[in-house]
Amino acid sequence: MNQLTLRDIGEQGLLARLQRFCPAELVGDDAAVLPGVADRALVVTTDMLVDGVHFSVGLANPLRTTSPADVGWRSIAANLSDLAAMGATPIGVTVCLGLPGHVPVAWVEELYEGMSDCLRPFDTPIVGGDICRSEIFTVAIAALGKVYPDQAIRRATAQVGDAILVTGIHGASRAGLELLLHPDQGQGLSIEERAELICAHQRPHPRLDVIPLIQTVRSELAIERAIAGMDSSDGLADAILQICRASGVGAHLDRAAIPFPAAFAHWLSEEHALEWALYGGEDFELVLCLPSEMAVALQARLGSAARIVGAIGAQPDVILHDSLGKQPDRLLTLDQGFQHF
Amino acid sequence: MNQLTLRDIGEQGLLARLQRFCPAELVGDDAAVLPGVADRALVVTTDMLVDGVHFSVGLANPLRTTSPADVGWRSIAANLSDLAAMGATPIGVTVCLGLPGHVPVAWVEELYEGMSDCLRPFDTPIVGGDICRSEIFTVAIAALGKVYPDQAIRRATAQVGDAILVTGIHGASRAGLELLLHPDQGQGLSIEERAELICAHQRPHPRLDVIPLIQTVRSELAIERAIAGMDSSDGLADAILQICRASGVGAHLDRAAIPFPAAFAHWLSEEHALEWALYGGEDFELVLCLPSEMAVALQARLGSAARIVGAIGAQPDVILHDSLGKQPDRLLTLDQGFQHF
Repeated sequence: MNQLTLRDIGEQGLLARLQRFCPAELVGDDAAVLPGVADRALVVTTDMLVDGVHFSVGLANPLRTTSPADVGWRSIAANLSDLAAMGATPIGVTVCLGLPGHVPVAWVEELYEGMSDCLRPFDTPIVGGDICRSEIFTVAIAALGKVYPDQAIRRATAQVGDAILVTGIHGASRAGLELLLHPDQGQGLSIEERAELICAHQRPHPRLDVIPLIQTVRSELAIERAIAGMDSSDGLADAILQICRASGVGAHLDRAAIPFPAAFAHWLSEEHALEWALYGGEDFELVLCLPSEMAVALQARLGSAARIVGAIGAQPDVILHDSLGKQPDRLLTLDQGFQHF
Repeated sequence: MNQLTLRDIGEQGLLARLQRFCPAELVGDDAAVLPGVADRALVVTTDMLVDGVHFSVGLANPLRTTSPADVGWRSIAANLSDLAAMGATPIGVTVCLGLPGHVPVAWVEELYEGMSDCLRPFDTPIVGGDICRSEIFTVAIAALGKVYPDQAIRRATAQVGDAILVTGIHGASRAGLELLLHPDQGQGLSIEERAELICAHQRPHPRLDVIPLIQTVRSELAIERAIAGMDSSDGLADAILQICRASGVGAHLDRAAIPFPAAFAHWLSEEHALEWALYGGEDFELVLCLPSEMAVALQARLGSAARIVGAIGAQPDVILHDSLGKQPDRLLTLDQGFQHF
């Protein structure tokens, strides 16, 4: 291995190589100047990811589960998903990297390729960044978006009687991670099923495609009120619980309606599949609370992976109910989430 | 020491305590929604700072030079200075922190106090952030600002004949660092002089106050063209060299006009003082290239620390000239800068 490292080319050398990932007109000043957003509000979100905590890229730990391209993709996807969760359209992202000096230049370029691949369909530029030396590989992304203020999606605006619509299947990312960590798992899966689950983990799709559909349906049905929602990055149960807590409401969920990958039938017990769907996290779907007629119309446009999983109620609890009558009602809580320290 | 640490209260516990540093209406969703900027352009900048590289807070290294409050202040000041360098007014900042679990909660609160102290005069909120575990204390800040597009200050727009105006003294931050690292230095300094230099290092002031003055002078003199400039965070020489490179011009500087702290007379040789003024860095003043009449008018409003240090010329070199005739002309280069890997 005679690879060029960051130590060989220095910060300026690396920046020069990475400029091709940024629009030329935004590079070269102390800050980037972007077009204004006219009558729309600005939306801002930010995330920090650390090697060995949020992923393992093999720089510090030989248990490598994530390629640099996938780290790039997922760090961007998480931030774009936060914009989607607000009903916003992306404007640009900034990227800060902390990198050990021994990292190959090609590795950093692969990271940027992954970021660019994720940004490309949304025509969203990298508008700035910083690179510095750090013993631990660290990424901090900030994403900017825009939204008409009355179309912003918030957690605190769910109303009793709202339908709860999820935009896609849950548990796939958690299953993909399991297959990466324990390749001997899931012997009953086909090669395609296995690849699809791993891909769900490595290349999650932020649901920015849902935002214009919401506006279309809103117009068609002449619905003016704000809808509630967030993304399911910390799990489907977490999203519903957070929305209910912020809105001062509760929810009834139908166990049979929770959408998880068909492949789970060849691998997991029903209970196990349900746990991953509810608590697995990182599926980056949207969980929306909206008038029932709007939920039905939106589901029709989103296709069969989208599902109305329940309804908002006045009682503050979130209850998982088995409409088939096989299991007793279950109270969902945040206990199964984890804390980062 | 029986201090509460991050490990004791977890991520959610820390976030709850830090919410008092953010406007309540911006907290609680996947992203923050800010007012739009109407007919102004957006300006975005970002920085990452790593313990042991950009400062030493004593978490990893007993040689502690920077208190958490000062780290907070300086990380914000650097980003606000980048906005000032673009002629922009700040809208808000995001803050990402990577923190070891053993860090005392009070330490993080002190960091945020320092950030808030720096932001307060500019009425600029912390609009978002992320906190995660990291073995190395890391801060990533993104700052958002707004500017009328025709008033943006850029590096590439300096014109032959422009005066070069610096908004204040240089070398003070470098001197303050020296006094912190080697307290036995500067025996000839008074207590006040010593404190002032240390303060220049620990609590630099982003020159956002200069921006409205530029517009006032521009209106008074009916000057329409864009002015050029950047901040002197990487040193005065670096700023002038970068502007000249971007604009395809050169500069003549008058050695006697370079403004450094009066206290240097009790401590440093003339040569040493000049080196720190030119290459010390982190003074966070603005270096502006603008029509000479405008430079004179702006200098009058900024006071005596602001100085016209030279003029832009057609030859691509940056020459330091001694108008007193004691020293030969000197060609300035970027060689004395340092790279981060």
